Amino acid sequence: MPAGCVIGVDLGGTKLLAGLLDDDLRVLDRAYSPAPRSDDPEELLTVVVDEIRALLQAAADGHHGPVTAVGVGIPSLIDRARGVAVSTVHLPLQGVAVRDELQDRLQLPVALDNDANCAMLAEWRLGAARDCGDAVLLTIGTGIGSGVVAGGQLLRGATGAATELGHMVIDFDGPPCQGACRNHGCLEALASGSALGREGQRIAGQRPGSRLAQLAADGTTITGQHVTEAAREGDRAAREAVERIGTLLGVGIANAMNVFNPEAILIGGGVSAAGELLLGPARAEARRRARPPADEARVELARFGADAGMIGGGVLAREELA
Amino acid sequence: MPAGCVIGVDLGGTKLLAGLLDDDLRVLDRAYSPAPRSDDPEELLTVVVDEIRALLQAAADGHHGPVTAVGVGIPSLIDRARGVAVSTVHLPLQGVAVRDELQDRLQLPVALDNDANCAMLAEWRLGAARDCGDAVLLTIGTGIGSGVVAGGQLLRGATGAATELGHMVIDFDGPPCQGACRNHGCLEALASGSALGREGQRIAGQRPGSRLAQLAADGTTITGQHVTEAAREGDRAAREAVERIGTLLGVGIANAMNVFNPEAILIGGGVSAAGELLLGPARAEARRRARPPADEARVELARFGADAGMIGGGVLAREELA
Repeated sequence: MPAGCVIGVDLGGTKLLAGLLDDDLRVLDRAYSPAPRSDDPEELLTVVVDEIRALLQAAADGHHGPVTAVGVGIPSLIDRARGVAVSTVHLPLQGVAVRDELQDRLQLPVALDNDANCAMLAEWRLGAARDCGDAVLLTIGTGIGSGVVAGGQLLRGATGAATELGHMVIDFDGPPCQGACRNHGCLEALASGSALGREGQRIAGQRPGSRLAQLAADGTTITGQHVTEAAREGDRAAREAVERIGTLLGVGIANAMNVFNPEAILIGGGVSAAGELLLGPARAEARRRARPPADEARVELARFGADAGMIGGGVLAREELA
Repeated sequence: MPAGCVIGVDLGGTKLLAGLLDDDLRVLDRAYSPAPRSDDPEELLTVVVDEIRALLQAAADGHHGPVTAVGVGIPSLIDRARGVAVSTVHLPLQGVAVRDELQDRLQLPVALDNDANCAMLAEWRLGAARDCGDAVLLTIGTGIGSGVVAGGQLLRGATGAATELGHMVIDFDGPPCQGACRNHGCLEALASGSALGREGQRIAGQRPGSRLAQLAADGTTITGQHVTEAAREGDRAAREAVERIGTLLGVGIANAMNVFNPEAILIGGGVSAAGELLLGPARAEARRRARPPADEARVELARFGADAGMIGGGVLAREELA
């Protein structure tokens, strides 16, 4: 009989994923919904609470034992002492005491952390960085998120703002970054899914017969996802675009090797669906550049994919509260 | 009456500096010698032992109490478990069990670490990063060395090779790096003392009346030290060169802010003699690029200058052995 379950929540800019996890942090049940397109924090919190309550009901119905705690990852700088979302780009939670608001409504202990830290926590405790004292996770989606374990602890920095590896400059004279970042030549500006889409668009113009050129001819704005899919289907132009982005990603990986000397560097996020088409060139470039013995770090796919933040929320709940 | 002294040693590529430190880690006495220009490890170890023995004698003569331990920093990757210098560029100590060799000869406990870690340790315990949980030290000399405190501990990585911040790429298509580094576009290739010398040489050609142009006309190969001195004396061409290097250094500092979110970033090494002529442009560039709130880190001079490694050796001895 299980000692108790926890619920992990990944509250993204566009979706909300929650999972019921058992004593061994296996996913027993899950709930998914699009995040409400609203500026109202009240509305958003209501959706979160409803989803968590659905899982509490599922736990009761399935006789899974009591749910003892909830862990929530959100894409925001977090004031962990107060449980407040300090700065959010995609969600209407700026300045909201998310932890206490959820605790009050659920009458359960709630832990709150940055979503990238949650994803790192999942990979570290249960995934591809298990048993590592030093590891790096890069999540390549629209942007590039990251989490780092250094010397056996999650790296947070003085005010919780550390491990913005997507905003390391790798080309000081490079193109402007995106979103709230005022920097230019960042890894995210050059090797994210957005950059892959741009590279695909560029190459489409040069390869009339390619899948990418067909998409462009249909008036489609080529995204990173289009390129990733076309590359997996064997389109050579798309593979070339993925290879170019992989090589630039490898520059960032080399930096991470030289800075952290980790045992493993894990690649997650939507663009990681390209697998070795992306990782091959990234690994080769990183090994060309990084200093021995730091160049020996494993470079491989993260284990949990789109579930990483949710499972990490569960790990957070277990370790901090349950 | 002091409980006991320790001896700190900074064994550089060209010089050997040792200090006798009291119970509060104040420097009571010091010994300096050029490192022997020899490929013989035996000869080098003999010089080190002789210098330490001179300080042991000084401790006895000055009634400073017993010397309880010795801490040694060397510019090498260190296998800390075995006390072996794993990879050295400037010293004939590759594969030498430096710790045990010195312990046997001195009959005193010896601790061994990388010299940049020792310098960080000195600044962290006693210097400009005192009481910081997160701090970065960049030592700008011929190359760029660095040490990092993250989450209240010295960052070492999986095999002791972490915190090579000088070999972060900031220009992926940039010039080759120097020494044993096979990378290109590294911070060290663009913002070290060597890069400052090259920038001074370049600007000398454009400014006929400048101090730098006079030096070049005399057949002098302009070094970082020439440029730093001319800048301090007010030469405008030299100040321009320092400003350019400072701006590039600022790119690296922005990366360190985004990666570590430290309370303080300290700048040491020979080039730091340029003071605010270097730090002003570096700070401005870093604040333009780094993400809030990480951009709020203090950027200032390290406290201990050329003594940092030696004092850090003393801290190491005190904390690990005494």
